[in-house]
Amino acid sequence: MKKLYGIGTGPGHKELLTLKAVKEIERASIIFAPNNKGKNMTLDTVEDFIQGKKVILLDFPMGKVKREDYIKAAEIIYKEIPEGETGAYLTIGDPMIYSTFIYIMEEVEKKNIEIEIVPGIPSFLAGAAKSKTPLTLKGENFLLCDEFREEFLGEVDSVCILKTLNHKEKIIEDLEENKYDYKYMKRVSLENQEIIINKDEILQDKDYISFIIGRRKEND
Amino acid sequence: MKKLYGIGTGPGHKELLTLKAVKEIERASIIFAPNNKGKNMTLDTVEDFIQGKKVILLDFPMGKVKREDYIKAAEIIYKEIPEGETGAYLTIGDPMIYSTFIYIMEEVEKKNIEIEIVPGIPSFLAGAAKSKTPLTLKGENFLLCDEFREEFLGEVDSVCILKTLNHKEKIIEDLEENKYDYKYMKRVSLENQEIIINKDEILQDKDYISFIIGRRKEND
Repeated sequence: MKKLYGIGTGPGHKELLTLKAVKEIERASIIFAPNNKGKNMTLDTVEDFIQGKKVILLDFPMGKVKREDYIKAAEIIYKEIPEGETGAYLTIGDPMIYSTFIYIMEEVEKKNIEIEIVPGIPSFLAGAAKSKTPLTLKGENFLLCDEFREEFLGEVDSVCILKTLNHKEKIIEDLEENKYDYKYMKRVSLENQEIIINKDEILQDKDYISFIIGRRKEND
Repeated sequence: MKKLYGIGTGPGHKELLTLKAVKEIERASIIFAPNNKGKNMTLDTVEDFIQGKKVILLDFPMGKVKREDYIKAAEIIYKEIPEGETGAYLTIGDPMIYSTFIYIMEEVEKKNIEIEIVPGIPSFLAGAAKSKTPLTLKGENFLLCDEFREEFLGEVDSVCILKTLNHKEKIIEDLEENKYDYKYMKRVSLENQEIIINKDEILQDKDYISFIIGRRKEND
């Protein structure tokens, strides 16, 4: 039988890989990752552990991926893993959070192949750690979203909003109006990481690898 | 200067430690963890990496911890870390999620000591991985809570509810009424881990190390 590991490689820093991720990457006969203009950030993260291994970058047209693309990727994955051996599909952060692996998994599962998922550190936890921002104290809750709506805030103590690039002004206004503190985190765990709390500086930034953590003022 | 690392040790399996956690545990002169009847689960997780090190279990009376207890713990931590060396405070899961480290940090920060947080794999991610349950697809959101209220469900695609022990029946009824699938996860990543989907079996279980993941039916 063949086996595919869906591996969360964390936010980008090599040291935030788990021991299990390193072990299964080192054992894998072949490495898969989504093709992002000929490269993928996860390959930099795992660089030390894939020396000499075959790497296949799978094509998913940005923003307009169709089910056929996942079926095609699943076929390549199945074909390329040698019988009795393992492959590693790398994802940024965690495989069950906003990851192409979820869609891939659904198609690969239809084939005669075992699947195992190795969880990874999501960027919002690395950001909370770096900025020493509590996400949940006893009795509190935390919401993670990519497409923010103000209505989310009513019941929520802490919130992490990914993909803020084109909606920063509205998001920050909503957070301020609802009495949340906020921090903008950029390239967390990477070389030029930055935590910005000044509103104007946040609005000016254009980095795609960024998110906002909000926390209700009265909670601290 | 002294330095304290707040280290997330993940859900319990040794291999879900990050490389950074292992490195800082191995470098630390002294290990701290909350005292849970003379032991702490995190010590089993990191057993291989603390051989011969001094371990201090800090007392926090269950369910009735007062600020004085954290001040006292912070004083012990400050006193016990030798000048110019580091200490490691171990937490289950991640230090910024439902952890005593958040309270400890507030008190330790008032002293002349550096603090760094090492994120860890929270149990809900290990559970989602083990059960192959997507938490967020594009456009979806995810809520984490310990004290569940039905009102949370309105806007939420996936939910993880910790501390279900005494409220399981109500939680499951609310999930069913609001058209959520659910899985009960017990001792995730530990030796006798179990995923239960049968309602009666879930209601009968009494394990404290357990949680429920719910996911809106129409999302899959």
